[in-house]
Amino acid sequence: MKLTIERSTLLKALGHVQSVVERRNTIPILSNVKLEARDAGLALSATDLDLAIVETVTADVQVDGAITAPAHTLYDIIRKLPDGAQVELSQTPGDVQMTLRSGRSRFALPCLPVEDFPNLGAGEATHTFTLAASELQTLIDRTKFAISTEETRYYLNGIYLHAATSSGVPVLRAVATDGHRLARVEVPLPEGAAEMPGVIVPRKAVTELRKLIDEGALDVTIALSETKVRFSFGHGGTLTSKLIDGTFPDYERVIPQDNDKILEVDKKLFSDAVDRVSAISTEKSRAIKVAMDQGTVTLSASSPEAGSAVEELECSYAAAALEIGFNSRYLLDIMAQVEGDAARFAMADAASPTVIREVADASAVYVLMPMRV
Amino acid sequence: MKLTIERSTLLKALGHVQSVVERRNTIPILSNVKLEARDAGLALSATDLDLAIVETVTADVQVDGAITAPAHTLYDIIRKLPDGAQVELSQTPGDVQMTLRSGRSRFALPCLPVEDFPNLGAGEATHTFTLAASELQTLIDRTKFAISTEETRYYLNGIYLHAATSSGVPVLRAVATDGHRLARVEVPLPEGAAEMPGVIVPRKAVTELRKLIDEGALDVTIALSETKVRFSFGHGGTLTSKLIDGTFPDYERVIPQDNDKILEVDKKLFSDAVDRVSAISTEKSRAIKVAMDQGTVTLSASSPEAGSAVEELECSYAAAALEIGFNSRYLLDIMAQVEGDAARFAMADAASPTVIREVADASAVYVLMPMRV
Repeated sequence: MKLTIERSTLLKALGHVQSVVERRNTIPILSNVKLEARDAGLALSATDLDLAIVETVTADVQVDGAITAPAHTLYDIIRKLPDGAQVELSQTPGDVQMTLRSGRSRFALPCLPVEDFPNLGAGEATHTFTLAASELQTLIDRTKFAISTEETRYYLNGIYLHAATSSGVPVLRAVATDGHRLARVEVPLPEGAAEMPGVIVPRKAVTELRKLIDEGALDVTIALSETKVRFSFGHGGTLTSKLIDGTFPDYERVIPQDNDKILEVDKKLFSDAVDRVSAISTEKSRAIKVAMDQGTVTLSASSPEAGSAVEELECSYAAAALEIGFNSRYLLDIMAQVEGDAARFAMADAASPTVIREVADASAVYVLMPMRV
Repeated sequence: MKLTIERSTLLKALGHVQSVVERRNTIPILSNVKLEARDAGLALSATDLDLAIVETVTADVQVDGAITAPAHTLYDIIRKLPDGAQVELSQTPGDVQMTLRSGRSRFALPCLPVEDFPNLGAGEATHTFTLAASELQTLIDRTKFAISTEETRYYLNGIYLHAATSSGVPVLRAVATDGHRLARVEVPLPEGAAEMPGVIVPRKAVTELRKLIDEGALDVTIALSETKVRFSFGHGGTLTSKLIDGTFPDYERVIPQDNDKILEVDKKLFSDAVDRVSAISTEKSRAIKVAMDQGTVTLSASSPEAGSAVEELECSYAAAALEIGFNSRYLLDIMAQVEGDAARFAMADAASPTVIREVADASAVYVLMPMRV
């Protein structure tokens, strides 16, 4: 293998793939990035056995070939090379080292044979559809915070993506929950997705996927197989991930339909007040009390060590007086997703799930379990 | 006590004093800030028993008084209040709570009596002198990195400040060392400092002092007593610290005077090359090899796992060829202090201390012990 490539091009592609590589690996080759030089392109791949990213970039390939080299070390070197540098990578078949040259710098990196590099095939695609990157971003950004981190509830450790119908309109829906809160967001159903099965995309794949979207992608093609999902970007990158092998709970049952105590608040004023009151709530429970009565909402918290806090806000509320407790952190997480100026809470009583929506946009629904306070 | 104060004024002063307060305290009152309202001013104090910061700000005091309240909670609340808010603090003598009001926010914070708050008196000043804040900043910034963190060598856990003579000129000198590297920086001796004893200012005091300088101070008055030092800023803040009760080693003995192998390098090119080569050096030793011969310096590193690296640079070097090993992290720390374009290394051999200076400025001297490579 022998090729020359722009430092900035290599840096960007390595930046994407190396972040999949775990810092500590018991299997040595998983610390490596696979480099495949062919025609006028260099393909870089990295995997942790659950997730694989491949990115192809333009390079001046003099001799075709493929090898694997330490991902983090290679990234570190390329990062430290001067802007505008040309990088030459070369490796003689059978040699255990790859040579990197740039200006008066010369590195020899230990290699492992490309044959030993695990290939996370996508499997045969049963369903394929294309989504605007901005829509995929919406689905991820507004649900990711609610993904469970409890490993025993592995079926909640990702975003549940599936086709559904919302007020008679077919939609692609993303749902995440950790049992305390739930986020449900939808976008118009893309062509080819109507028959797709519901799939659970794991947290790490979601995180890496989000980084790839940031690179200015326009469209993302999603291909589902029995056990895997592949996201393909126009700029030559693909992310393949195993799906979580589990059943996502019947979330519709926990979204109340008949909550009739309606509170509308200014999002910013309400969030700021919750944030201040939470300065007093204990580190552990983070509980705050929300009391509503005729146009006024009162937020309060108290703890034996930290004292007490009370905040009053104007609101729109006409139902019977109600007092309800929430985890302030969870409340702020949801408020951070509300894009318009106003948030609408629909409540039944102090023990039942509360539904939170944007006043201006019905495509996102959040459910929050109350706390005893 | 009752007073009204601008949120931004209170936030800035609290920001300074609360950073002295440790997160975990076995003595409850050390978690508190002392608030003393008198005439048209509010004095805020915090201490960890080794170090105390006092800051006085303008406030509209309606009733004089003093109390202590939880520093981090108070800071958190003030930080979260809206910009431009007015804050009212009040406390009735004998009451165990202080009330904080702002707009429609109301907080009650648990208090402890001001009589129990430890007073870190400065002691009787034996020497007092005034320094430009920019000069104190130079003394700190260029030596702080070399302060030892080894608790057993407590006499190295600070900056040694003393009067000295440099080429016949009286100077105020700061020295720090951890046994592997040493930094010695000097500024013209201020009036009144000629007879001062050498004092060791502890690391935490140095760190907090540095933050106060950032706030645009012009002059700093330094008062030394038998066991303490007090730094007074024009903007109404003082920092008092215990001195380290130990003897700083005779550092002049470890600064070689006769090193005659002189290497001059471009600071930026050299630092960048050291940084790249260090990508290969092992995490533990961080060792790199520097080889000089007739106008060329070659940097290299190798490790069984990570491979090898070689960088060549042009330099000014006319002595006999020499190969010497350094800790790359230490070398980069020193290079980061060099302000001009060029650095000058004076070496004897591969086992003796190397002296590093700026080519343009003789007021700072760095000494680095070599490593076996």
